[in-house]
This record gives sequence, C-alpha cells and structure tokens, in this order.
Amino acid sequence: MASLVELIAKKRDGGELTDAELSRLIAGLMSGELADYQMSAFCMAVFFQGMTARETAALTHAMLTSGDVIDLSDVDAPKVDKHSTGGVGDKVSLCLAPLVASCGVAVPMISGRGLGHTGGTLDKLEAIPGFKVDLSVADFRRIVRQVGTCMIGQTAALAPADKRIYALRDVTATIETIPLIVASILSKKLAEGIDALVLDVKVGRGGFMKSMDRARSLAEALVSVGQAAGKRVSALITDMEAPLGRTVGNAIETREAIAVLRGEGPDDLVEVTLALGSEMLVLAGVQSDMDEALHCLREAIGSGAGARVFERMIEAQEGDPRVVEHPEILPQAPHQLEVRSPSDGVVTAIDALEIGLTAVAMGAGRTRADQRVDHAVGIELRCARGQRIQRDEPLALLHVHDAAKAEPHAARVRDAIFVDPEAASEGAHSRLLGRAT
Amino acid sequence: MASLVELIAKKRDGGELTDAELSRLIAGLMSGELADYQMSAFCMAVFFQGMTARETAALTHAMLTSGDVIDLSDVDAPKVDKHSTGGVGDKVSLCLAPLVASCGVAVPMISGRGLGHTGGTLDKLEAIPGFKVDLSVADFRRIVRQVGTCMIGQTAALAPADKRIYALRDVTATIETIPLIVASILSKKLAEGIDALVLDVKVGRGGFMKSMDRARSLAEALVSVGQAAGKRVSALITDMEAPLGRTVGNAIETREAIAVLRGEGPDDLVEVTLALGSEMLVLAGVQSDMDEALHCLREAIGSGAGARVFERMIEAQEGDPRVVEHPEILPQAPHQLEVRSPSDGVVTAIDALEIGLTAVAMGAGRTRADQRVDHAVGIELRCARGQRIQRDEPLALLHVHDAAKAEPHAARVRDAIFVDPEAASEGAHSRLLGRAT
Repeated sequence: MASLVELIAKKRDGGELTDAELSRLIAGLMSGELADYQMSAFCMAVFFQGMTARETAALTHAMLTSGDVIDLSDVDAPKVDKHSTGGVGDKVSLCLAPLVASCGVAVPMISGRGLGHTGGTLDKLEAIPGFKVDLSVADFRRIVRQVGTCMIGQTAALAPADKRIYALRDVTATIETIPLIVASILSKKLAEGIDALVLDVKVGRGGFMKSMDRARSLAEALVSVGQAAGKRVSALITDMEAPLGRTVGNAIETREAIAVLRGEGPDDLVEVTLALGSEMLVLAGVQSDMDEALHCLREAIGSGAGARVFERMIEAQEGDPRVVEHPEILPQAPHQLEVRSPSDGVVTAIDALEIGLTAVAMGAGRTRADQRVDHAVGIELRCARGQRIQRDEPLALLHVHDAAKAEPHAARVRDAIFVDPEAASEGAHSRLLGRAT
Repeated sequence: MASLVELIAKKRDGGELTDAELSRLIAGLMSGELADYQMSAFCMAVFFQGMTARETAALTHAMLTSGDVIDLSDVDAPKVDKHSTGGVGDKVSLCLAPLVASCGVAVPMISGRGLGHTGGTLDKLEAIPGFKVDLSVADFRRIVRQVGTCMIGQTAALAPADKRIYALRDVTATIETIPLIVASILSKKLAEGIDALVLDVKVGRGGFMKSMDRARSLAEALVSVGQAAGKRVSALITDMEAPLGRTVGNAIETREAIAVLRGEGPDDLVEVTLALGSEMLVLAGVQSDMDEALHCLREAIGSGAGARVFERMIEAQEGDPRVVEHPEILPQAPHQLEVRSPSDGVVTAIDALEIGLTAVAMGAGRTRADQRVDHAVGIELRCARGQRIQRDEPLALLHVHDAAKAEPHAARVRDAIFVDPEAASEGAHSRLLGRAT
C-alpha cells in the first residue's frame, strides 16, 4: 500500500487518487498520521494538478464523514438549504429562509461570520437584541421542526476535517482551488442533513470569483459533485460587482432583509432572493415550476407569512421578535454622514470590494477571526448603478459613532462610486448572470 | 510590504521573488513567523514553478546565513571540498580527500549518513575502530590545519534552515526539485568556509537523478549558483547505473577506499577518484592543468603520501590508524556466501538500486534516520559490467552473520546481476559521462 507521502507525490505528478486513497489522507489528517505540513503540500499540488469530478466527490465524502451528519429524519418537510460564496451586502439568507419555510420547505441553515471584505449571516443576526446563534444540535433540530428554519453557527462536530484544511489553505495560498472549495462547501452543507441545495456563486469585484469563467467552473463543479453525492443541487451565478441591496453593515443589513419580508426591499435584493427561493421550492418538489414557485414566494411576502416565520425563528433563538415590526429597535449609530456626488452624471459602478473594505475599516467587519464587530455602523447607499444623479446629491450615508473621525471613510466611499458626466442613464442591471443544473 | 502568504502566492503564480523576499521567508521560518505548513506549500509551489538562477542563489545565501560559516582563514592552503549527490558503493570521499590533501589542498569535509539505498561517508568511517565523527568545530579547524583534511558530521550551527527545510521536503514529496536541491547542497557546503567545490552528480538507477537530462540540469544549476556565490565550482556527471567499485557495505567499502590509497583499487573507483581530485587541484590553483593534477595524484598513490594523510586524519579523529596497513582489523562478518552465475554469458548490467536496497535489508544501511547500521555486513561484487563469465563462477560474495538466513539476499543479488548468454563481452565502461564548468 502506498505511503501517505507517495499519495502526495501521485497528485503532484498528475495522478488520479482512488476513493480509498483520499479517504486515507483525510483519516490520516484527523488521526495525526498526516501532518499539517503534508496536507498543505497536498493542497498546493491540487492547486496545480486539479482533481477529477470523481476525486472531488470522494474528497467531499471523506471530509463529510470526518464528523457527524445531523439527522433531520423527524422533519417531515423536504429540507433544502442555500449557500452563497459570499459578497458585500449579501443579507439574502435572512429573508430567503423564512420565505421558503413559509412555503412548506424546511431550511436548516448553518452559517458563518464575516471575514475580510465579506459579511457573515451570523453577525447580522446577532444585531437583533438577544439573538443566539450557538445552539445545540438538539435545539437546532427542534426549531427546524417547529418553525421551519433555524440559523446557527458551525459546530466542532460537523466536518472537522474541513476546519483543519480550511485553516491551512487560508495561510498557504491554496484558497483559490476549485476542487478544494467544492469539497469545503459541500462537506459542511451536506452535514446539515439536507435533501437539496441551491448555490449562489457570486462573481465580480466583491465576490470570491473575479471572472465569469471561474464562477461558471465553480458552479458546475458544485452542482456535479453535489449531485454525485445523491442530492438535488442547482447553482445561480449572480453579480457581485456592486454591493447587493443598499446597505453594508450588520444592523442596517438586517433591517433591509426585514424590508424584503415586508414587501419594501430594493429591486436587486428582491430579485436574487426570489430567484434563489424559486430554485429551492422547485428542487424541494413543493412547486412544479419556477413561475408557481415565484408566485408562492410573492404571496408569502404580501401576506406577511415570511415575516411571521422570521419572528417565530427569532423568538425560538431568544431574540426580540418585535424587531420585524419595529426595526428601529436594532442598534443604531448616533451619527449619519452624507457622501455627496462631486458632479452631475450617471452612476456607472459601485466598487463592492472597496465598499466592503471601508465597512471593515469602520468596524462593521473583521480582518482576523477573533475580532468583534460593531453592529451599528455601516454604509447605506443612496444610489444604484445606471441612475442619473446631480452634483451634491447624496450618494451614500455613513452610519458612524464619531462623525469627526469618519471623513477618511467618506472619502473612500466617494471614490468607490463612479459618477460619469458623459454616460447615458441605463435601466436597472439584472443580478442574474447564469445558472448551472 | 507583502505578507509571507502573499510571497507563497507570488511563487505559486510564477512570479520571481526578490532577494529580500527570499531572505524574509527563511528568516520567518527560523523565527517561527512562517510555519512548517507554509514552507511545505512554498516548496510544492517551487516544484511546479521552479526558480531562476538569481532566486536560487538568493535562497542559498539566505539558508547559508541562517547559521554559522566556519572560519578557516588560519588555514594557509586553498580549501576545496567535493560533494556527491549519493549513490551505491560511493566511498570516493575516503580516498579522495587524503590524496588531494597530500597534494597541498585543504579538504574540510562535512559529510552525511546513509539513508535508503545510498550509503554515507560517516557510516563508513565509523567502521574504523574508535573513529569519531562528532568533533567540535574548533577540533575540525585544528585538524584541517594540521593534517590537511578532516571529516565530520553536520552540526546544528551550520545552515539550520536547510535542516528544517530538508526534513519537510522529505515527507511532502518535494525532494525532486532542482532549485531546492541546489540550495540545500550549496548552503551546507559553503558553510564549510571553502574557496572551491567540485560536485559529483550521479546519474542512473542507483543515483538521485535517474536521467541524463535531469543530471545535466542539476550539475549546471549547482555550478552557476555556486559561482554566483563567488566560489570556483565545477561538476562531473558520473555513472551510477551499477555500484561504484566492487563493494557495498561499510567496513568493506572502507577497505576498498584504502586499497585505492595503496594503488590496489578497482579501475572505475580509481577513475572517478582521480577525475574529481584533478578538478579539485586545478580549481584550487595548485596545479595548472588536468594532466599535471593527475600526475600529482598518481604520485601521491605511488609514494604512499595519500595513505599517510589518511592515517594522520584517523589518528587525529581518535581512530586506529593501523587500519591503513592492516585493513583486516576492520569489522568482518563471520560468513561469506557466494552468489554464482546461473549461466555462461556476459554481465550486461548490475542494478545499483537493487544492490543498495539488498545491502540495507542485510543491515548495512537504514530506512529511517534513527536506525543503527551493521558495519561488518555487505555485498562484494566479483564481476564488472562487460565481463564474460562462466556458469557457476562467483558473481558476488555476501558478508553475513548468519548464512542460513542470507539466502533471500543472495537471490536478490543474483537477480540484480544480468548475465546475457548472447551478448558480446565489452571493454570497461567509463564512469565519466559529463562535466559542467
């Protein structure tokens, strides 16, 4: 039998590892037989040599079975989740899960925190007074069964191999490796005990994938490996050149997600939410086509059924459910600083990466996993791409604690919003760029 | 300034690191700022992307200056060493260094132990009763000054970065990476405080490089990087398809090296020793051309001057110098088992790798660095390539402790020596295949 070093050499030389060999690598990592420095060399070899779909599926399976899989067999409804590759202003999970749950699909959602320029669902939820994200698996199962959805943080028992490998990839320049990204996402998501999964692959300046080619490759790999694992999986590719919606921060994003549930959300955020939700309802089998699914979701907004599910979930997770009717009880920063347009013209671009990084600098995000975030601060956009604007009209509003110190952030936001005096105004951009099934 | 992770990414993406960046990587490794799992990922990136000559020189310099450089300025003679990439039956250092030293060149030699199928100079020296290889640097300097040569093991103070990196490469499938091989060899050798260096790049079944192309690439890289470091450097490429000389083991190899000093060595071993020695004398500047250098070395054999230097070195290193006149005081195994030819024919090949691995299995070598070796056992060849042989004539003699248990080793040796009934006998093969200057 080949040694573990020989398995690294086999991948290095472009060989295809067997299911048993990948299983031995992951078991070796968990037992200590394979050292961290060997796994990082293996990851770099995968960066150069790639993996076949079969290898990626086997790696995913090995990482998934390195820990527990949540048993949701006592939940009668079909169980479907959504995963986004992360972006700026991406508060979709907060409104999507309650809407989908109100249409008869259970959404057991294990989410992450923000890091770098991208925000995290858990941070946004924690802006709600009292809200708890570190529930036991037993409570998670109970709430999914009773409410239809629950949103918690990763537990140590789910896909522990992924935690080990991700931590290594983060510091060894091996993040941007599609087979490893696929195995990381799917091993965590399949551990939720779901039947189906919809992926939101973000592409553009504020996304993880910068080019459409890379985004399409990732979307296709996620779908094919997820399907090989026996799940119903589809993926949308959505635009992350500009922040999604009008808010970037924590409390202000939660407020915007509530606005979607109340029928008051901005067009682009509503578009992405409904598109992902339709995919989920059809994959779940509760709606037979996209039009019917869309209708059901619109009804859930109009009737307030989605908002009611969100209230029940907040209550079950010890948060204050009045936030849905009274978003003003969310933390608010004492000062708002306006960023005004330097000229007449059309907004041609809003740099999501730069807006995201500015929000981090303001305290809304973190550059290291152990940092705390400030829920109250953030950036509220007052314009959208394609919109004509006059000189001195507001482009954005910064929510800050200390207006005197906010000028550098304001300058960064002003520079991140491109106003072209020559350009013609356009209609709204669609965020939906592609789909893989 | 780029983070250390960004430097890994730069190499991963095919960039050329600056001298300062490589220096930061090695300093980071030594300080703990760069973790082992980051260095192993970097090594794998170098495997795929290579390094320019300038990068390799900068890496060598950074590794060299991670520790001490021995100061031999009080040795008047020019200081020249030889390094072999390792092989089977390669006892050249033992006879070469005394011969060269007797011609007026100081040879400060820091050597290694055997591992896997390749033997090590230190193990062969330790076959001499009482011989010590773990001397202090002060004693090393004194003996080089007084005797002209001294052979010790690596010390923790010389090129410690190389020790760290080599240990990682060994278990992460990144050994076969020419820039890293070059930096490893040269950082250790330049730490000896030498003026010039001759390299013996072995090619073939028993060598580290299996193909002439790879051997030539390594030889050229060693020469150009060594010269960039301000040293006079040349390299020979020599044949390691078959074991060098007639012996593979420890005491029996030491005996064969002594035979060279006494004018009784086998042709191929003498050829390689004199070729490397001539390079050393010319690089040192004590002889103006190869013919004069060769003449000087032959005189040192004929007059016994080389043997006298070896005696003085053994005495200085607490070994029994009588071994030169009385090699029978070396450890001897109690039994000799003959391996006989299965047919009439011509010896067309002797598989160095298989002979080396059989010697390890007999106890003459080690598969892990912490194993002890048996100095007495080994394999003595009774034939050479190209030689005509009769059925039942001896091909080899196994030196063993227990003849009853030696039959599997004998069978392996028999299978490793190819006797072709149809082939025509040939003249002796030259071991000298190429040269890089």
